[in-house]
Amino acid sequence: MSGSPSEHAGAVGHHFAAFDRRDWHRPVDRGPLRFAVVGVGTFAKNRALPAISTVEQTETTVFVSNTVSESDPVAREYDIEAVVGYDEFHAGAATDDYDAVYVAAPNAFHREYAESAAKHGKHVLCEKPLATSVADARSMVDACEDAGVTLMTAYRLHVEPATRRTRELVQEGYIGRPVQVHSTFATKLLDGHDDDHWRLDPSIAGGGATIDLGVYPINAIRFLLDEDPVTVQGVTNAWGSAFDRVEEHAAFQLTFPSGVVASCSTTFDGQPDSHLQLVGTDGSISIDSPYGGDVPQEVTVECGDMRMEYTGAPVDDVCEEVAYFANHVLTGRRPGPDGRDGLTDLRVVEAVYDSAENGRRVELDADD
Amino acid sequence: MSGSPSEHAGAVGHHFAAFDRRDWHRPVDRGPLRFAVVGVGTFAKNRALPAISTVEQTETTVFVSNTVSESDPVAREYDIEAVVGYDEFHAGAATDDYDAVYVAAPNAFHREYAESAAKHGKHVLCEKPLATSVADARSMVDACEDAGVTLMTAYRLHVEPATRRTRELVQEGYIGRPVQVHSTFATKLLDGHDDDHWRLDPSIAGGGATIDLGVYPINAIRFLLDEDPVTVQGVTNAWGSAFDRVEEHAAFQLTFPSGVVASCSTTFDGQPDSHLQLVGTDGSISIDSPYGGDVPQEVTVECGDMRMEYTGAPVDDVCEEVAYFANHVLTGRRPGPDGRDGLTDLRVVEAVYDSAENGRRVELDADD
Repeated sequence: MSGSPSEHAGAVGHHFAAFDRRDWHRPVDRGPLRFAVVGVGTFAKNRALPAISTVEQTETTVFVSNTVSESDPVAREYDIEAVVGYDEFHAGAATDDYDAVYVAAPNAFHREYAESAAKHGKHVLCEKPLATSVADARSMVDACEDAGVTLMTAYRLHVEPATRRTRELVQEGYIGRPVQVHSTFATKLLDGHDDDHWRLDPSIAGGGATIDLGVYPINAIRFLLDEDPVTVQGVTNAWGSAFDRVEEHAAFQLTFPSGVVASCSTTFDGQPDSHLQLVGTDGSISIDSPYGGDVPQEVTVECGDMRMEYTGAPVDDVCEEVAYFANHVLTGRRPGPDGRDGLTDLRVVEAVYDSAENGRRVELDADD
Repeated sequence: MSGSPSEHAGAVGHHFAAFDRRDWHRPVDRGPLRFAVVGVGTFAKNRALPAISTVEQTETTVFVSNTVSESDPVAREYDIEAVVGYDEFHAGAATDDYDAVYVAAPNAFHREYAESAAKHGKHVLCEKPLATSVADARSMVDACEDAGVTLMTAYRLHVEPATRRTRELVQEGYIGRPVQVHSTFATKLLDGHDDDHWRLDPSIAGGGATIDLGVYPINAIRFLLDEDPVTVQGVTNAWGSAFDRVEEHAAFQLTFPSGVVASCSTTFDGQPDSHLQLVGTDGSISIDSPYGGDVPQEVTVECGDMRMEYTGAPVDDVCEEVAYFANHVLTGRRPGPDGRDGLTDLRVVEAVYDSAENGRRVELDADD
């Protein structure tokens, strides 16, 4: 990029003119896509069900739950056709009533629901992390590919305007050659989140802060740079009494084929905050609070002496995610954050754990 | 810390009420401290000489230079008593005319000037990094201790109000227990800094971005946490054609005895910017542009839902540094950023290089 600061500002402003455009959307003449929602907990009730109801091409027709009954107000609110238990789901109950599953159960259960869905010929939208191990994730990917169904990992950042517009700016060279990335994600896991205590159990969560929070910066940076890391090094630790089985804090560095180095940190016990910054030879771009639930869509671009802060209109990113998934399924296209995308993130997570334990930089083989 | 957001804000505000107080100052009945300035280049002319002239207890009486003569306007401007060449300085010329030296020569020459000054019984204020190797730094420390003279590494951040007030807030528990630190320092070395090209020569600079820029976050974080790292891991790389002998970019992680992990990155070719953030269990503190020359003294404190941004009055940090050094020498006290402080930073720098080359986490022995 060259040009005066005002030219830069104009170019960036032009870029943000249609900030929340759904550039991924294609015309659809089918639908609606009928969802079975697996795991009707807080997230499903507060975010997934309202979103599926709001999106034009989708509806929830089946609950997969052992605790919510057909007479439950939430089942009546969404006019659910069937509530099936977990074993019934695996056995193939109500398969005429849904086209896809939204897996919102804890991490360790993702694989079994995704694989049963694939066996029933249903598409899968699965919460992140995709699984609790690389082996499980690979099995899920293979099962869905063999069955010819779509598997999408529910990374909402792929549909958030701040992230998509930032990615375009980077690809078009606004910040020159990317040099370094910095990203953090801190939460207070134990403050009023009784539902989340399964995250302290490695047999259900797969690990601690790295697999639960670290996948956000890992996936965001891979998406923004459009490349995958080749080396990983990290440290993890814990001191809180609740964190005797999973790591409370993690920090890790990823190097990419282009030479970019990303420095990331996550914690289950820090002042809640998230941040992402890309530094390039000619400029930098920051996204404020990219991971914390309701993303404020604030982007700051600096190129030389030009500084521009942009705040886009807020979007419901679960609505965007559901619409994105449905649009790709109904038009026969593969979503960006597919199963392999979630699998790659888990390979990075396992490399962080390996490096943290063994004190070595871990090389990731592209063909692994 | 506990209490309401407004109580928090009040407490922090009270803390910042005398933002730029010189809490390190003690009454002095001696002086002035007369400086021999070694290396009369851009930094000396633009910053050091005006500062020494401004500070009440200091004056410049001698130039040590092979290029600036007594008839030079800058020598006349500061009413210099003697200009001595480098060899003359080592041989003991004009030792009656100065009490201390300000070593502003390139890194590789720090050791010889500091050791000659010690031999002459003169105090030493030496630019950072203290030397180009741990061995050289240790020799300087020993020489000054044996001679009974003060050796201070010129880390201006120790006298910057934003850093000092932040350190107090951390020590008093405003952010709870510190968990993670993030710090970055990016410059464009090759943009209009012809004077700095010695930084591309490892025999003079001692290395690249890590030793030149990385010492800022290393020293700042050690100062703020009041502890030294126990492990170091890092990566370095370069792709610019000018960087065939020193690293252009570096990223490294430091772990501390308390469990804090610091993630740092530096580059010689990135959008100019610097940042430092401490994340604790109860809050966070950020300093904006802590390393970039004129520090804007902007501090942001967040505790739970309370957010406070504070901008202190700007200070000339070279004035503060000179005044701090002189006040400590004239009152017979040891400065905070002494020679051992600069030595510790170089141990971290060498550990980054070791880790970058060997792919291993490096342990630092406290007794090394």
